[in-house]
Amino acid sequence: MDLFPIYKELHQKGGKILLVVLDGVGGLPLEPGGPTELEAAKTPNLDRLAEESTLGLLTPVYPGLTPGSGPGHLALFGYDPFRYVVGRGALSALGLGADFREGDVALRGNFATLDPEGKVVDRRAGRPSTEENQRVIAKLKEAIPRIEDVEVHFYTESEHRFLVILRGEGLSDGITDTDPQKTGLPPLEAKPLNEASAKTARIVNLLSQRIREALKDEPRINGALFRGASQKPRFPSFQEVYGLRAAAVASYPMYKGLAALVGMEVLPVEGEGDAHEGKLKALRENWERFDFFYLHFKKTDAKGEDGDFWGKVGEIERFDALLPEILALGPDVLALTGDHSTPALLKAHSWHPVPLLLKGPFLRRDEARRFTEAEALKGSLGHLRGVELMPLLLAHAGRLLKYGA
Amino acid sequence: MDLFPIYKELHQKGGKILLVVLDGVGGLPLEPGGPTELEAAKTPNLDRLAEESTLGLLTPVYPGLTPGSGPGHLALFGYDPFRYVVGRGALSALGLGADFREGDVALRGNFATLDPEGKVVDRRAGRPSTEENQRVIAKLKEAIPRIEDVEVHFYTESEHRFLVILRGEGLSDGITDTDPQKTGLPPLEAKPLNEASAKTARIVNLLSQRIREALKDEPRINGALFRGASQKPRFPSFQEVYGLRAAAVASYPMYKGLAALVGMEVLPVEGEGDAHEGKLKALRENWERFDFFYLHFKKTDAKGEDGDFWGKVGEIERFDALLPEILALGPDVLALTGDHSTPALLKAHSWHPVPLLLKGPFLRRDEARRFTEAEALKGSLGHLRGVELMPLLLAHAGRLLKYGA
Repeated sequence: MDLFPIYKELHQKGGKILLVVLDGVGGLPLEPGGPTELEAAKTPNLDRLAEESTLGLLTPVYPGLTPGSGPGHLALFGYDPFRYVVGRGALSALGLGADFREGDVALRGNFATLDPEGKVVDRRAGRPSTEENQRVIAKLKEAIPRIEDVEVHFYTESEHRFLVILRGEGLSDGITDTDPQKTGLPPLEAKPLNEASAKTARIVNLLSQRIREALKDEPRINGALFRGASQKPRFPSFQEVYGLRAAAVASYPMYKGLAALVGMEVLPVEGEGDAHEGKLKALRENWERFDFFYLHFKKTDAKGEDGDFWGKVGEIERFDALLPEILALGPDVLALTGDHSTPALLKAHSWHPVPLLLKGPFLRRDEARRFTEAEALKGSLGHLRGVELMPLLLAHAGRLLKYGA
Repeated sequence: MDLFPIYKELHQKGGKILLVVLDGVGGLPLEPGGPTELEAAKTPNLDRLAEESTLGLLTPVYPGLTPGSGPGHLALFGYDPFRYVVGRGALSALGLGADFREGDVALRGNFATLDPEGKVVDRRAGRPSTEENQRVIAKLKEAIPRIEDVEVHFYTESEHRFLVILRGEGLSDGITDTDPQKTGLPPLEAKPLNEASAKTARIVNLLSQRIREALKDEPRINGALFRGASQKPRFPSFQEVYGLRAAAVASYPMYKGLAALVGMEVLPVEGEGDAHEGKLKALRENWERFDFFYLHFKKTDAKGEDGDFWGKVGEIERFDALLPEILALGPDVLALTGDHSTPALLKAHSWHPVPLLLKGPFLRRDEARRFTEAEALKGSLGHLRGVELMPLLLAHAGRLLKYGA
């Protein structure tokens, strides 16, 4: 069910909304019965805020589905992640902050090891270091700046992973992958799935060949497998769907890229890493210009991915220390949640729901006393899906008219 | 997802169901931390019923969406309100209890003030009193009984709002609105969106012209803007979908009209306003004839719309006093809920969920002790959507077979 036509019809002017995303904030106990990262953290400011707020539990995408950053965030932005799909190549381009333009085709590449007959021996070329990857990418940039009239741009991602962006006239992303998904077979030919993609398939096949020539003296990294050819998607904008002038305050390319995809203005942020002070400065200086702010913090997820339970606890406490300054901005509606869980126990994203906190007018009292997974379950918002958050924020900001007479 | 084919396949004979709707019963505290209307009310009978029942929290339509009476009720009747849409003109006709027949086209009209050049100066003609509206409607009835072979029926709604019903051969509702939605422009021409609606568009344009002629000496109310042309929708009936002989016991035209749309027999009710005794009498006298009763009370919503917190509390208490007589009817399954919230704080419908109470066989025990928003959250039914109520009632009444072998 696509509700965008309904939001488009019902939105009106109203209060200012601040959506804070603590990436991967949901967690798990290290041992059964123990506290999660949020439960272990000492968060006096957040505790006080939770008392004045209402909570709920939010399943970002679907029960049991572990969201990547793309689907997790698109859902929080109200974009059904099964309908608004970002291809793998495009996601890589967003994640790297690559120069990725309308009409470009992005491809996710894996370096591979091929035998003398051209069959794949190792689909990840022995998992080279990222430094090794960078060395080989430099070689490819030099050797293959273009194919026919198409510019070829190479980017290191990490280990065996890289990105290629093709730029030129008449490209389209309807082509098959070249990764055979197993060893003992040669890389596949890219095949066009429609006429508009014939040129792209030809260029990708020439690219595979040129890479093998350029790397023929490399012992391990001597081939490439491509997946997920994709153009930059065209999604309806926040302005169009919700009538919101929206801004993103984030430090990492992936989140800036996702925000830009839905038409948010990405504000420059000074500083390294999560850049707490830089983000506050960006918010303060632009507070009057926008109706909606998306504020992203990354380190909770990063520590979770590292399996560093106490590091993640520390990041939650660092956020807690920053909270009074965020509240001082005075948003009419404040929401705090995560795009998914990243339990340190799993060292990875997980499918578990995340707590949602909502502060604003027109709240019902509830018995949730802290911003934790277990307390969120007692919240008066009940159990929601990621895509249901935006209409709720609009409603509390007085921005949605009645549906039907 | 349309589940009607499944209900049609699985329904069988079973117990008698009574669905009681306290319109707009959900509320908000007047100040943070305070009680809602339901929490403030003294409801000894309802408290006792809640002890013996199971509860749940019900989001009538969608998180954040504030339902009008149409979508709110259709959802409770199990009709997906995004699929089963009633046009604005048709809803007005239902709300006024107008003589509205198959093939008629209903239009919602706004009286407007036009300048000498025919441009809209005020889209609501200075919000005239309803008496003023009635005076002008009487003039129009006299002046424009028909156009070509089409009967024109005028109805006062309130203030600047009125209803027109067109009746004749070859009418259809695929036409554009004439309301330009802003001042400084002349009313728009109604345009047909398909061939079948060409005649209707012509009649509506002639009607706009004839209204201007008839009202040319009026200082303020000298034009009309039309929206939401709609025929009476044809929805599948309760009998067809659920196998239920269903009756509606309601006093207000809108709810009688909505019930009739889904094939309920609308029982006559004696008395004014919410007519408590008249409704009980209608139930008692028809108890054997039907499998399903929809019993509606309006005043909880009306007091909420007035911003009268304690008035709404009083209506809840009046309902509580009536409850023993309702229970004495002995339905096999009793459900009590609202079609939406109408917090006195907001003086309007809102998006907040409503409590749902279910009494019948096969209940799980739960910790909800009162029919209130906060207690409902602890109920064993969990958090439901409006459209999910009907299958639950059918199940508890033993009226749904197993789905799949």
